[in-house]
Amino acid sequence: MNPIKCRAAVLYKEGDPLVIEDVIVPAPDVNQVRVKMVSVGICATDAHFVWGTAKMESWGHKLPSVLGHEGTGIVESIGSNVHDFQAGDVVLMSIIPQCNECVLCQNPNTNICMKNLLPDMGSRVSKKLAKSGQALYGIMGLGTFSDYITVNRDQLFKMTNKVNIENSAIISCAVATGFYSAVNLGKVLPGSTCGIWGIGSIGLNVLQGCKYSKAKNIIAIDITPSKKDIAIEFGATEFVNPKQLNGGQTLEQYLLEKYGGVDYAFDCFGSQIIIDQALKSLSVTGTFVLIGVPPDDTNIVYPCNQLMTGRTITGGFVGGKKSEQAYSELVEMYERKQIKIDQMITDKIPLTKINEGFDNLRSGKVIRSLVTFTGTKMN
Amino acid sequence: MNPIKCRAAVLYKEGDPLVIEDVIVPAPDVNQVRVKMVSVGICATDAHFVWGTAKMESWGHKLPSVLGHEGTGIVESIGSNVHDFQAGDVVLMSIIPQCNECVLCQNPNTNICMKNLLPDMGSRVSKKLAKSGQALYGIMGLGTFSDYITVNRDQLFKMTNKVNIENSAIISCAVATGFYSAVNLGKVLPGSTCGIWGIGSIGLNVLQGCKYSKAKNIIAIDITPSKKDIAIEFGATEFVNPKQLNGGQTLEQYLLEKYGGVDYAFDCFGSQIIIDQALKSLSVTGTFVLIGVPPDDTNIVYPCNQLMTGRTITGGFVGGKKSEQAYSELVEMYERKQIKIDQMITDKIPLTKINEGFDNLRSGKVIRSLVTFTGTKMN
Repeated sequence: MNPIKCRAAVLYKEGDPLVIEDVIVPAPDVNQVRVKMVSVGICATDAHFVWGTAKMESWGHKLPSVLGHEGTGIVESIGSNVHDFQAGDVVLMSIIPQCNECVLCQNPNTNICMKNLLPDMGSRVSKKLAKSGQALYGIMGLGTFSDYITVNRDQLFKMTNKVNIENSAIISCAVATGFYSAVNLGKVLPGSTCGIWGIGSIGLNVLQGCKYSKAKNIIAIDITPSKKDIAIEFGATEFVNPKQLNGGQTLEQYLLEKYGGVDYAFDCFGSQIIIDQALKSLSVTGTFVLIGVPPDDTNIVYPCNQLMTGRTITGGFVGGKKSEQAYSELVEMYERKQIKIDQMITDKIPLTKINEGFDNLRSGKVIRSLVTFTGTKMN
Repeated sequence: MNPIKCRAAVLYKEGDPLVIEDVIVPAPDVNQVRVKMVSVGICATDAHFVWGTAKMESWGHKLPSVLGHEGTGIVESIGSNVHDFQAGDVVLMSIIPQCNECVLCQNPNTNICMKNLLPDMGSRVSKKLAKSGQALYGIMGLGTFSDYITVNRDQLFKMTNKVNIENSAIISCAVATGFYSAVNLGKVLPGSTCGIWGIGSIGLNVLQGCKYSKAKNIIAIDITPSKKDIAIEFGATEFVNPKQLNGGQTLEQYLLEKYGGVDYAFDCFGSQIIIDQALKSLSVTGTFVLIGVPPDDTNIVYPCNQLMTGRTITGGFVGGKKSEQAYSELVEMYERKQIKIDQMITDKIPLTKINEGFDNLRSGKVIRSLVTFTGTKMN
């Protein structure tokens, strides 16, 4: 196996556009797999770096780096000691590795793995710049905005090709994160009242998770009125625009008066304002789930006496659900049409238009865009 | 049935000693039961008001009030519409009512009841001063430092007389709160590492709960060296005095280096310093459980990025476990010697010595004192 020369979208500096250029993707080493990408979702977590609202360094990352952390692809070649993948396999990426051996993988209540990428996010070199040979890092151990990637096998999961492989890319992050933040982290109970702050692709999947869990009231909260229709389609029983409440009522007043507060509050955006508002909107036994990644200096500030009736504050990457289990369940649900995925994908663009993709995400024009790669389309 | 004239310990002002004086306990009204007290524990939650470190008003209470919220007693008489109690029944008190009918009683994940006492803590008049006829309130709907109390039937639970009734008084709060904060709120997993801040009667019961849940490392943390022996007796695998760590190491450094942090951190005291320290000592997937009732202005302040690996912050009264279920399980475990209760009771005093009881609690001389009432002793 030889290195491959191909294109990737490189971040040189937070706040600057991505640069599409030729890179060298190495042959897979021990326990590594090289994948030809099919499709990658444009997610707000990457966007924070493109928009300059978060620093790579505070995540343990280094620059320059290839962004992209969702995705599907086809195995191109395998390194030594890889026995469960072969060329041609359809695979899904995970930002959370799963070694199945460590003490955390043995713990049923977390998807964090001791071989977690977090400590080596900046150190895992996945590519080099073709023109200069400079080392390039890949965000979250991946960096999927690239024709090919070489990745640790613990971050890959084999999937069926009976579903739409392109659209499946968002199972990786948006679908798994949203759905399991409701079903697994929040453990939404039947008959409960759920508030979902931020109706993007994460929020819509939280809606699906709440509906799946048979919540009674599912309140979609967003300041973009046009998101109402898709929120209702995905399971919302009510759409609330906090800017349009009657008589200057605050959102928390509205939710407390109408529902006695929400039993589950999901922040799918990640901002101090929403976090504070969501915490204040909790019912006496409510659970707050932090999903959106807030700016680095954001804190939970919460009066202790409010915890004593049994309130809970939690958060987690990818809904805290172990990847293998999450992905196999979701792919099956997608195949059986028990969850909606296609309806969330509102745009498909080539890698060369990736900066427009991030602009469209910011303006609220799209729910989720996909970057799709030519020559790898399966269906 | 007539009103009964008897003695009670009355708080007129926070920070002042309790006054033992004659009061009038009314005949039980609809859904009420009058109980002759057998035994009451002296708990730190009451003590905060006696010591002046908390205000009754911030709990929704009014003064003057009879303190005391643990306890066992014998039913003396019943009001109308009470069919499940009769004179002579041995009963245990709960600060948390359980109507078994409301939406929260139907929710398996909370012990808060819609008929919760909290909103009417100050308004439930249980007694009058004998000398003046002035209305007297009872803390947490109880006020058990009294020869007799008249109480809502939803706060009473029938128990067996096959166990030591006097000692059982602390099942009401200390045992149930500590044990279920580990078993139910924390949901301690086998093989895990638990840190318990504050080795009083609550802390010892958290230890028992962690041991029952088959935790691997159970670290008792207290600045009173004499508490080591009883901590070990109750299940601690290690006793740490934060003031005696080697080389100026902080407690959180010690716990992170030795154990990778604690999977469960229990604050059994309720102070800003301990809360901050316990939060900093969490493992990547750790759960913090607030048990001790901190001063009114105490806050959780926690960086959001620390939540994202799946950490959880929670709290709750009486371990969040429904009273009936909790008490029936605990009384049975006590009878079968699966939990220790007698070993925790280090002093028994008459009502007339109650102020000494609070002094002894403050000085760390006792683990738990009981106020016992003459003429009602069962065994």
